[in-house]
Amino acid sequence: MPTNLVLTKKPKGVTVIEGFPGFGLVGTIATGFLIDHLKCEQIGRGFFEDPPATIAIHDCKLVDPVGIFYNKQHNLVIIHAITATSGIEWKAADLVLDVCAQLGAKELITIEGVGSPAMAGEPRAFHYCTSKNNEKKMIAAKIEHLGEGIIVGVTSALLLKAPKTYPISCVFSETHTNLPDSKAAAKVVQVIDKYIGLKVDYKPLLKQAAEFEQKLKSIIEQTGKAQELKDKKTLAYVG
Amino acid sequence: MPTNLVLTKKPKGVTVIEGFPGFGLVGTIATGFLIDHLKCEQIGRGFFEDPPATIAIHDCKLVDPVGIFYNKQHNLVIIHAITATSGIEWKAADLVLDVCAQLGAKELITIEGVGSPAMAGEPRAFHYCTSKNNEKKMIAAKIEHLGEGIIVGVTSALLLKAPKTYPISCVFSETHTNLPDSKAAAKVVQVIDKYIGLKVDYKPLLKQAAEFEQKLKSIIEQTGKAQELKDKKTLAYVG
Amino acid sequence: MPTNLVLTKKPKGVTVIEGFPGFGLVGTIATGFLIDHLKCEQIGRGFFEDPPATIAIHDCKLVDPVGIFYNKQHNLVIIHAITATSGIEWKAADLVLDVCAQLGAKELITIEGVGSPAMAGEPRAFHYCTSKNNEKKMIAAKIEHLGEGIIVGVTSALLLKAPKTYPISCVFSETHTNLPDSKAAAKVVQVIDKYIGLKVDYKPLLKQAAEFEQKLKSIIEQTGKAQELKDKKTLAYVG
Amino acid sequence: MPTNLVLTKKPKGVTVIEGFPGFGLVGTIATGFLIDHLKCEQIGRGFFEDPPATIAIHDCKLVDPVGIFYNKQHNLVIIHAITATSGIEWKAADLVLDVCAQLGAKELITIEGVGSPAMAGEPRAFHYCTSKNNEKKMIAAKIEHLGEGIIVGVTSALLLKAPKTYPISCVFSETHTNLPDSKAAAKVVQVIDKYIGLKVDYKPLLKQAAEFEQKLKSIIEQTGKAQELKDKKTLAYVG
Amino acid sequence: MPTNLVLTKKPKGVTVIEGFPGFGLVGTIATGFLIDHLKCEQIGRGFFEDPPATIAIHDCKLVDPVGIFYNKQHNLVIIHAITATSGIEWKAADLVLDVCAQLGAKELITIEGVGSPAMAGEPRAFHYCTSKNNEKKMIAAKIEHLGEGIIVGVTSALLLKAPKTYPISCVFSETHTNLPDSKAAAKVVQVIDKYIGLKVDYKPLLKQAAEFEQKLKSIIEQTGKAQELKDKKTLAYVG
Repeated sequence: MPTNLVLTKKPKGVTVIEGFPGFGLVGTIATGFLIDHLKCEQIGRGFFEDPPATIAIHDCKLVDPVGIFYNKQHNLVIIHAITATSGIEWKAADLVLDVCAQLGAKELITIEGVGSPAMAGEPRAFHYCTSKNNEKKMIAAKIEHLGEGIIVGVTSALLLKAPKTYPISCVFSETHTNLPDSKAAAKVVQVIDKYIGLKVDYKPLLKQAAEFEQKLKSIIEQTGKAQELKDKKTLAYVG
Repeated sequence: MPTNLVLTKKPKGVTVIEGFPGFGLVGTIATGFLIDHLKCEQIGRGFFEDPPATIAIHDCKLVDPVGIFYNKQHNLVIIHAITATSGIEWKAADLVLDVCAQLGAKELITIEGVGSPAMAGEPRAFHYCTSKNNEKKMIAAKIEHLGEGIIVGVTSALLLKAPKTYPISCVFSETHTNLPDSKAAAKVVQVIDKYIGLKVDYKPLLKQAAEFEQKLKSIIEQTGKAQELKDKKTLAYVG
Repeated sequence: MPTNLVLTKKPKGVTVIEGFPGFGLVGTIATGFLIDHLKCEQIGRGFFEDPPATIAIHDCKLVDPVGIFYNKQHNLVIIHAITATSGIEWKAADLVLDVCAQLGAKELITIEGVGSPAMAGEPRAFHYCTSKNNEKKMIAAKIEHLGEGIIVGVTSALLLKAPKTYPISCVFSETHTNLPDSKAAAKVVQVIDKYIGLKVDYKPLLKQAAEFEQKLKSIIEQTGKAQELKDKKTLAYVG
Repeated sequence: MPTNLVLTKKPKGVTVIEGFPGFGLVGTIATGFLIDHLKCEQIGRGFFEDPPATIAIHDCKLVDPVGIFYNKQHNLVIIHAITATSGIEWKAADLVLDVCAQLGAKELITIEGVGSPAMAGEPRAFHYCTSKNNEKKMIAAKIEHLGEGIIVGVTSALLLKAPKTYPISCVFSETHTNLPDSKAAAKVVQVIDKYIGLKVDYKPLLKQAAEFEQKLKSIIEQTGKAQELKDKKTLAYVG
Repeated sequence: MPTNLVLTKKPKGVTVIEGFPGFGLVGTIATGFLIDHLKCEQIGRGFFEDPPATIAIHDCKLVDPVGIFYNKQHNLVIIHAITATSGIEWKAADLVLDVCAQLGAKELITIEGVGSPAMAGEPRAFHYCTSKNNEKKMIAAKIEHLGEGIIVGVTSALLLKAPKTYPISCVFSETHTNLPDSKAAAKVVQVIDKYIGLKVDYKPLLKQAAEFEQKLKSIIEQTGKAQELKDKKTLAYVG
């Protein structure tokens, strides 16, 4: 399982929240917001040795393809990924399960956007829990079941690869777009806040999520330009 | 043979019935009906680590790509697969043979739709048995031989991979469509009922099979939408 | 060398004749005719684990992708293949050489169609022998040398993989078509009859070869239909 | 890590500068200029066993796909690559890290062009350093931070594969083109000169870089012609 | 290094000349001429297990994809290849170096055509030698340096894979075509004759090279037809 994972600190008995891009980049935006908001420290990083090799710089700092962060107050580990998952879902799931195993995680919360063809008003959120206890907590927090649907991406690979009794709690948020969707991500943050009691200050939430959306958009734009240049370049290459 | 197979209970000397999608999704509908009708309990599951990772949720419950179910009364194990088999027929056959080996199965019944260009009235069913005894039972139950044909899919891989003396009894049902075909699946259920004496209540059969067809259709539709969103999404991905 | 080969009987010191489809399906038709005509018993089978998995049923019986047959009178083993060889020539050669090794074969006779752009009248046959003795026998039987040509397919892989001193005798027959060519196959049977003295009854030869051609055509047609259905099906698949 | 690396001399405690082609071939031109200017001796070479096999001859001498050069005065090792990196970034990073490990390098300086859509006047240069000390030196030398951006190519793979504390100092130069860009490369040379004090004679710099650009262009043109001939040739090939 | 190489005789301290097809099939024609002219005996053969499997018959004899021949008078081993090298340059280089190692070769002479866009009159020849001594002999024989150029094909892979001190002497001949170019090949023969003193009779040289060109053309034409038939055939295949 060579997931190129490095952990510099190993808190035990943590709750792990993971967010890979997926639909509307919901997982990436939501975990990015939580990291900033909960003032987490970075305790690890990971990457996948797949082409093309890319790494982002934001605000003069490296943004790891997969960053692993820790919030001591809530004994919470957040896996924040900006790397595309298309084709590497299984490896991404291995990395997440490896983090959980090394930290003896007591629960894994996954974030995924689900497509919603005709969406109006605030996006809805749904849950799916492998454990009855967590399911009760979700229902108590008034978060609906995902009744029918096809789950794709890292969440799907996690549900398949983890033992069936492993406590995975999936949070889904409706999104109708492939662009970064900060509203759907904000909904996810509200749900997780209600579910595990993070006491997030609600007022700046949407505003901050929108700012994070902007940050991601600028990264995406530059990736696009880099890719464009790269595509042209191969013509002129030596070798 | 890493087929990602988990069995939580291992009844012995069972008869195994397997149904993978194939033409008209006949195997999936027929095994799905039998599981509901015979009130089977799930005793295992499997999946194939191939892209894309997808898992279905139906009625608030996970539907495993390959679910393994048990009916104690008839000592029957049913392998019910909703995962596409195109390109993984050999791995699927490995998984089925692995189940049979672990449970010391005395017979393996396979279900497959066969194309029928000009079909009118009720679909016909056919058999092919590797064992003379089972062939006699099929003929006694008035189920025709498959005289000429090309078998594809998991059934084909099973007939090739299993030792030639392994008791495999194939049930084929004519289908003229790629859409879920509940009539062809109902025909298969009738044949299996006659062949091993399950005492299925015939009246609700077609109606229930049609309901199951609806359920599968809704899963398929959502898969299609998920795939569509996924295809668009890759443009906007980070990384 | 995992060629998925099973031999249930191992006669020794045999002459092996192999026929894979190739141009005009000459090898398949000729070996099929010989098996029927010499009333051979099946002593083994083989297959290649390549997609798509397919198996034919003819006259209510499985037709193995590669069937291995024995005629005691002439101590002759016939390898009769209906599986496409495009892309698996090397594996097919491994299987044939594996049969030869297990049975201590004293000679391997290969059958291959060779393209002939402008062909009139009866197809001509040619030989190429790695052993001088066998070459003399061919010349004595008035079978021409193949003077110039490119050999493709399983015969080519056999000539390359076998040690240079291995007694391989290749029989080639002109064919101008990709459809099953029973005339070219009948020519091959005549040549082999002359060469090793099988005392084939010449009168029904062409008629029987034509019947076998029909049988193959019906298998091919059904394969085509199965493939067509398969191609459509992938759209509607679950998963 | 089979990087086909040969080192004939192993100076210790060196500073390593690496330049692979990338945007504007900046890394290749800049390292090529430095090798000539600092009168380095070649102490090693490397290549990647990827198709197509190509090697350049310039001025009657072989130009290794990856040449490794040494300047004793500054205890400097320069890795000068003309091989295309598209698809082999990870292997290229392995090779560079292997050189660093064998020579106990104290710092690795990487060179990469970064796309700049609207560029006027002299190209700007930027840095990113993994070590605070080196960052201070960069700032003291008045070289700006790369504030926002996506890094691709060998530099990206190096930042991901090296341990996070490894002292990598990246020099980026704006380039707006896929053609060899000697101005951007000259900027890189100025930056590295300021940063580690090579006392490069500034007057001939641009002129010499332009000459090196010409040399590379002639290599590229001939590669293009070779590729063209090669593409046509495959039609006529024997075999 | 599984190069499927067989040597039936192992003369020591030989000079090895290798010719793979490449531009203008120069290497194949030149080595073919030398084998005939110097009345060499075949002492080995090789092939590459790549699709499609093909083998040529010329003048009732097998033409090995890679034939290895010996001339005792000059203690010369000639590797004559008619197999396409596109994509297998690295494996071909392994095979050549394997021959050199087994025979303790004192020098390896490689033959390669180089593209020449505007060529008039007799084709020019060039050399590149890794050893200073051999370079002096080339210059003494009035054979020009290859001043600038990109070398592709087996020669390129040999220059990269062999240790830098290995005595490889490359002979290049201008060719402007992808068709077999007997004039360019004759030029190569003249150069090698001057270089190692084979005392080739110059009068019949061009005529014989032209005849060999004809032989190769007929092989190529038949390969083309075989390929054409093969392409059509796949439609009608069983399986």
